Amino acid sequence: MRTARTPTDPAAGCQGEEKWQTLYPSGRYSRAITMFRLDRDTTYLMPAHFGGDPFDPSYQARQKARMLTVTFETDRAELERYIPEELELRAPEVQVALSQLTEINWLAGGHYNLVSVSAPVRFAGDVDRVDAPYALVVWENRTAPILTGREQTGVPKIFADIEDLHVHRPHYATSVSYEGNTFLTMTFEAGDPLAGADLDRAKAAFGPLDTIGWRYIPKVGAPGADLSQFILFPQAMEVDRVYPGTGTLTWTELSPMQNPRQHHIIRALASLPVKRMIGSMLAEGEVVLRGAEARILR
Amino acid sequence: MRTARTPTDPAAGCQGEEKWQTLYPSGRYSRAITMFRLDRDTTYLMPAHFGGDPFDPSYQARQKARMLTVTFETDRAELERYIPEELELRAPEVQVALSQLTEINWLAGGHYNLVSVSAPVRFAGDVDRVDAPYALVVWENRTAPILTGREQTGVPKIFADIEDLHVHRPHYATSVSYEGNTFLTMTFEAGDPLAGADLDRAKAAFGPLDTIGWRYIPKVGAPGADLSQFILFPQAMEVDRVYPGTGTLTWTELSPMQNPRQHHIIRALASLPVKRMIGSMLAEGEVVLRGAEARILR
Amino acid sequence: MRTARTPTDPAAGCQGEEKWQTLYPSGRYSRAITMFRLDRDTTYLMPAHFGGDPFDPSYQARQKARMLTVTFETDRAELERYIPEELELRAPEVQVALSQLTEINWLAGGHYNLVSVSAPVRFAGDVDRVDAPYALVVWENRTAPILTGREQTGVPKIFADIEDLHVHRPHYATSVSYEGNTFLTMTFEAGDPLAGADLDRAKAAFGPLDTIGWRYIPKVGAPGADLSQFILFPQAMEVDRVYPGTGTLTWTELSPMQNPRQHHIIRALASLPVKRMIGSMLAEGEVVLRGAEARILR
Amino acid sequence: MRTARTPTDPAAGCQGEEKWQTLYPSGRYSRAITMFRLDRDTTYLMPAHFGGDPFDPSYQARQKARMLTVTFETDRAELERYIPEELELRAPEVQVALSQLTEINWLAGGHYNLVSVSAPVRFAGDVDRVDAPYALVVWENRTAPILTGREQTGVPKIFADIEDLHVHRPHYATSVSYEGNTFLTMTFEAGDPLAGADLDRAKAAFGPLDTIGWRYIPKVGAPGADLSQFILFPQAMEVDRVYPGTGTLTWTELSPMQNPRQHHIIRALASLPVKRMIGSMLAEGEVVLRGAEARILR
Repeated sequence: MRTARTPTDPAAGCQGEEKWQTLYPSGRYSRAITMFRLDRDTTYLMPAHFGGDPFDPSYQARQKARMLTVTFETDRAELERYIPEELELRAPEVQVALSQLTEINWLAGGHYNLVSVSAPVRFAGDVDRVDAPYALVVWENRTAPILTGREQTGVPKIFADIEDLHVHRPHYATSVSYEGNTFLTMTFEAGDPLAGADLDRAKAAFGPLDTIGWRYIPKVGAPGADLSQFILFPQAMEVDRVYPGTGTLTWTELSPMQNPRQHHIIRALASLPVKRMIGSMLAEGEVVLRGAEARILR
Repeated sequence: MRTARTPTDPAAGCQGEEKWQTLYPSGRYSRAITMFRLDRDTTYLMPAHFGGDPFDPSYQARQKARMLTVTFETDRAELERYIPEELELRAPEVQVALSQLTEINWLAGGHYNLVSVSAPVRFAGDVDRVDAPYALVVWENRTAPILTGREQTGVPKIFADIEDLHVHRPHYATSVSYEGNTFLTMTFEAGDPLAGADLDRAKAAFGPLDTIGWRYIPKVGAPGADLSQFILFPQAMEVDRVYPGTGTLTWTELSPMQNPRQHHIIRALASLPVKRMIGSMLAEGEVVLRGAEARILR
Repeated sequence: MRTARTPTDPAAGCQGEEKWQTLYPSGRYSRAITMFRLDRDTTYLMPAHFGGDPFDPSYQARQKARMLTVTFETDRAELERYIPEELELRAPEVQVALSQLTEINWLAGGHYNLVSVSAPVRFAGDVDRVDAPYALVVWENRTAPILTGREQTGVPKIFADIEDLHVHRPHYATSVSYEGNTFLTMTFEAGDPLAGADLDRAKAAFGPLDTIGWRYIPKVGAPGADLSQFILFPQAMEVDRVYPGTGTLTWTELSPMQNPRQHHIIRALASLPVKRMIGSMLAEGEVVLRGAEARILR
Repeated sequence: MRTARTPTDPAAGCQGEEKWQTLYPSGRYSRAITMFRLDRDTTYLMPAHFGGDPFDPSYQARQKARMLTVTFETDRAELERYIPEELELRAPEVQVALSQLTEINWLAGGHYNLVSVSAPVRFAGDVDRVDAPYALVVWENRTAPILTGREQTGVPKIFADIEDLHVHRPHYATSVSYEGNTFLTMTFEAGDPLAGADLDRAKAAFGPLDTIGWRYIPKVGAPGADLSQFILFPQAMEVDRVYPGTGTLTWTELSPMQNPRQHHIIRALASLPVKRMIGSMLAEGEVVLRGAEARILR
């Protein structure tokens, strides 16, 4: 076995280990001299035995974002079929949001796209009473954030190919597909960007993005759950520009052979009646995720 | 919102729901008339609220497989740094195995590739005493099996692009890369296929594929784990053909900017000294996974 | 600039230059000591100045193939709109054929997929009188054969993503898409493989694959052509197995924004009426292309 | 065959045919009532029989561009091996330029990346005397512009995967790979953006991008060329921002089995000695291609 240790290391000359340790702290680089043992102050993801990151409660994941949202009113009973009974549906509304993320700090400048589908809920437990969007499903075109989202914060992320926005001003379009089978297309025709008080109102409206997810980890070799928790994930968008406009959503149902693991999700969403379009908007800015402040709702 | 319910449903004419229910049983199709409630006999993955599958202890995941393995001896102390102290390293050996999987029943005939890296260990607990390969890391080029593998059976799967084998007989080659950065290439030069008693011995040797994984699910908003379990995952290969031959592995370390979430894993594996090549082999047949029989080791 | 000359050369140990020179002959490796000059006996493709291959009239491109064909009768006038008037449409029939190609010798063991759409024509010129399928369009998911096909033999190849066949026996399915937008799905339900005289007849029917293409190279900075030639490209399939069965085609038209360069082609094909399904078949074997014997029809 | 004519047509509501006809003029939509016949004022690409575009000498292809250039001095004799003797090498310099293109008008808002390698030459013919960069090779990650570039203007474009820039300010990085095998990585560390007179000078220096290409179309079934022409392709960049900085290039040679059609090109470029780094720069703006004004040099 030949090992080429550093043939292609573009960052070698420009960023020392000290620098990267702020993102990927020392746990990953320390030399154990015995077998692997977990460190008490460290956060791990599988595979844990190659090391984790020191838990830093102040850590913020930051990224540039272009977000296109389309919101509509649907039938309450139809939507409630997909809302766990531990929650309360505050309004029979669904928001579909495409986010094109770039310059992601925790991916060292990488990028990916996501499409989230959510509905406004209330969690009213013994301790907590929280109003926030509930993540029905989030498609992402990159696996790393799917794993962190599911395992750390209970966001129900699954994979799809999500085309970068095609931009032929004022027209925007994207398509979401699975192994060559399109199941959602979004289009948007932008109006003039907001300014003045309109922009301020939009910034205030778009800014808070706290989300409720349901982390569900199954038992091994048996039905039921080893973990079943509702989690509040604090996040926000620092909005720079907002374009109102006209958006469309077009769902195409897929057969089990076209999408064996997701066809029932697509069917459920495609079947929700659209009683009224509430609005569409394109926002540009920076999204901040405070995953270390996520907490289990009780 | 326009919804095209069945424009592209190639399977519609040829396979009824009855058929698919053997793979994706009735839970996914039943109509709830209230809010979502978990069913006691069902297995779910996130998002759970769109429904799960009835737990079937006899279910077998089956797929055609072409598997290329390269095994080498390394330094015990170097390897033990990545073996949890709850386990015992039975030999300082590492096996790297590429599997090209097709006609996968639980993906309705889909396909994907994986590269697993494992070492032979013993779990000797209060109850169980098991010898099996320990999965150090498994790269896969499809997200769906990454999610089931991690969440249901603790296999430490992460994403990479894995090229289908290039086959210019007797030469085989593949490359494993992350966002355009190659970190592992494998080549193989095949000899004549085994026959007779040699083939029988190889079938017996290759057949059992039971694996030990470490399912680790972190706490929310804190260091440490909510779940930390060693799991035995029963699997086997029904071998049809075996080609002995000469294999090579070439690792290329990546910078944090090239692979921010995996560079430490690649560095660890690339740094393991190769004291001796043990052997290389190409096997073709069918792999059977009995995930419903997976169990937590105690 | 750092140059890593041979860090990842899996073939280095197993195949010498002598060997590769049979595929990529010496022109590519010879050292010129002056400026670049074309060699008289060499075939070049752009960029020519890095060298070409000695022209070898006996060279055969060989590859394993799994081919799924669906043939239907359409309206003659509708189809003739896309048949150049230099040709004669022999029957108002269209064949759509998916080919999944592996172990391709001229790609050193690589693989790709194509979907061809053709109609049976006659070229009756001053010199030649040839009956063969006319290639209306060929989508391929690999650029290298698109370039050779267009520039060397006038096959009108363009790019699409073409999913490897999903195989859930007896069901087969694939989808063809462009930047996330599905425009063609094909399914097939296989019957029992042919045997005996039926197989022999199918081998004879499937074997000849000679194709007529129209090489059209535009003028620079002006309308019209610098080259406009009908070319006969000799090819054949050595058939091993044939499965009759039932196939389906489903076209989905795309908007200019979804597929700006091909939407009119898809619309044309999707608009052809299906008067009668003629037949569907799945064949496995080896395809041989004799590109060096291609010739301009006169 | 089922045909779904308009299930996923996001642009249907927002842009009429009139609008698209400015990009894809009427030829594509006109109804012929006989067999296909070429129109005298139309430009076609294969397949021609589905229609072309009216030739418009004023048409400009426009796109947003982020361009990263790294320029170095090399050995004259080594470089001249790849310069056709019809040209004169003005300086032994090579420029490698990554361009990330978005909002491309002729792709209806689509996007793609390219990496061009060029050297400064003079064409001094019977009629023309032109100084411009000569395109040694251009890798692109989208096939459509590869085809137009090769066939219309002789730019020697071939395919590679080119990762969007990872941006972790002030660090930029990308990798260029073929079927999972990295052969070029580029990094850049940006300084402060230019302003005032420095920016004006940079705009003037970066603006003109006219390029010389060599259109070479082989004979059919014989060595030699049917077309062999040097072409001047007028293009320019309207520069908005320029960042000077420090760039690196790292080439990795590939084996014939890793990249059967391009390994000799990569080897040639990787073998060019770097005598001196001349400079690196990141520019953002808009690129304008005037393909209809391209002309054959004589």
